Amino acid sequence: MKIDAALGPADIARLPDRDLSRTLCVVFDVLRATTSLVTGLAHGMRAAIPVCSIEEALAERSQDPSVLLGGERHGNRIDGFDLGNSPLEYDARVKHRVVVTTTTNGTIALRACAGAAQTHAAALVNLSAAAGAVRGSALSTVLLVCAGTFEEPALEDIYAAGRLVHALGSQELSDTAAVCAAVGSRFGTDAGSALRATKNGRALLAAGREADLEWSASVDCVAVVARMAGSRLVVG
Amino acid sequence: MKIDAALGPADIARLPDRDLSRTLCVVFDVLRATTSLVTGLAHGMRAAIPVCSIEEALAERSQDPSVLLGGERHGNRIDGFDLGNSPLEYDARVKHRVVVTTTTNGTIALRACAGAAQTHAAALVNLSAAAGAVRGSALSTVLLVCAGTFEEPALEDIYAAGRLVHALGSQELSDTAAVCAAVGSRFGTDAGSALRATKNGRALLAAGREADLEWSASVDCVAVVARMAGSRLVVG
Repeated sequence: MKIDAALGPADIARLPDRDLSRTLCVVFDVLRATTSLVTGLAHGMRAAIPVCSIEEALAERSQDPSVLLGGERHGNRIDGFDLGNSPLEYDARVKHRVVVTTTTNGTIALRACAGAAQTHAAALVNLSAAAGAVRGSALSTVLLVCAGTFEEPALEDIYAAGRLVHALGSQELSDTAAVCAAVGSRFGTDAGSALRATKNGRALLAAGREADLEWSASVDCVAVVARMAGSRLVVG
Repeated sequence: MKIDAALGPADIARLPDRDLSRTLCVVFDVLRATTSLVTGLAHGMRAAIPVCSIEEALAERSQDPSVLLGGERHGNRIDGFDLGNSPLEYDARVKHRVVVTTTTNGTIALRACAGAAQTHAAALVNLSAAAGAVRGSALSTVLLVCAGTFEEPALEDIYAAGRLVHALGSQELSDTAAVCAAVGSRFGTDAGSALRATKNGRALLAAGREADLEWSASVDCVAVVARMAGSRLVVG
């Protein structure tokens, strides 16, 4: 298996120019978009529809009033939306529901992989399930997509991608995948310390959202594989 | 001191939009542009003028026939140029000479820092000298610029940047600087193994250029600080 990685938003912006037709993309936005979406799927959310703008989200609801709207701008719930971006909100209230979601980076990363053979969403909370899905795939080229924050790579995404590299065992790594693996090694299995060392982790603590950070660092607390089926993220 | 890093070409492409007027940029293109330029300065090269295109290099020589032309495309010397991009060519033959140089990534990275308060070129061969210059600078914001290869980040540049982070001791690190530090830790002081693990290192070995790799991995074999003075890279 060949493993490559896009380390942040500037690299993700170039993905639409790349032939991903035989590639399995795994998108990480650990604090907090993919953690929240995976958590929602574990709680019975029917699907999430990632969209890139608030306008697009509102248009989806005007088509189907039964959907919930979720997401954030600058870390906060968007006016008029049902849910923010805290994984702790993606509990029983999303059961059987479709959530239209827009965040600054995670949803953009998922959409940038539109040309991929398969796209999964992963986080620390479903790390082993995500690794199992990669191992079980017939695709032998994997691209780890680290969503980042605004214009910058995010350490927690690169760390989680590195943990996935380690979980996959000995493989052919690109330079950027080796970078992820090195960051995974640096913090080892102490995901809590890793997340506290990141800019986003420090911002969550400063905002009193320690519970979000703790949940996001709870490796393998759910066993869900999250994959894109057309425009929808579903269990798969 | 605050340390940030641009991990590769996609991030470097955005540098001209950034206010670097109070930032010290340190550019790494370990295999092989900055290694060659630093080596040349150690051998008495008067200055290097990094330019972005072959046409620009030829135009410089038409202005001043005494300059040497150096650089590479796809790793090879450019037709009609005096020097390629092997650090072993930057020896006595560059003494007292000005070298106009163009490479696929290193010179572009140096030029992308044009708005910086100061720009240095660094490599493993002058790591401690580069660290000393950073420590001695009045500027308290440092950006490590990892030139990469074509469109991709290069592991050797991120490794060398990480070694510089370690040499600077405890500082305030951005997420990307922490990524560099983790890669520095992963390979430790064994620069030879680090370079052999990279895509460019493997390509050099496959091309029979092991001596280039060995020289590039010779940490602190020269004690030169290389800094941009206007359009010229000089000892400083």
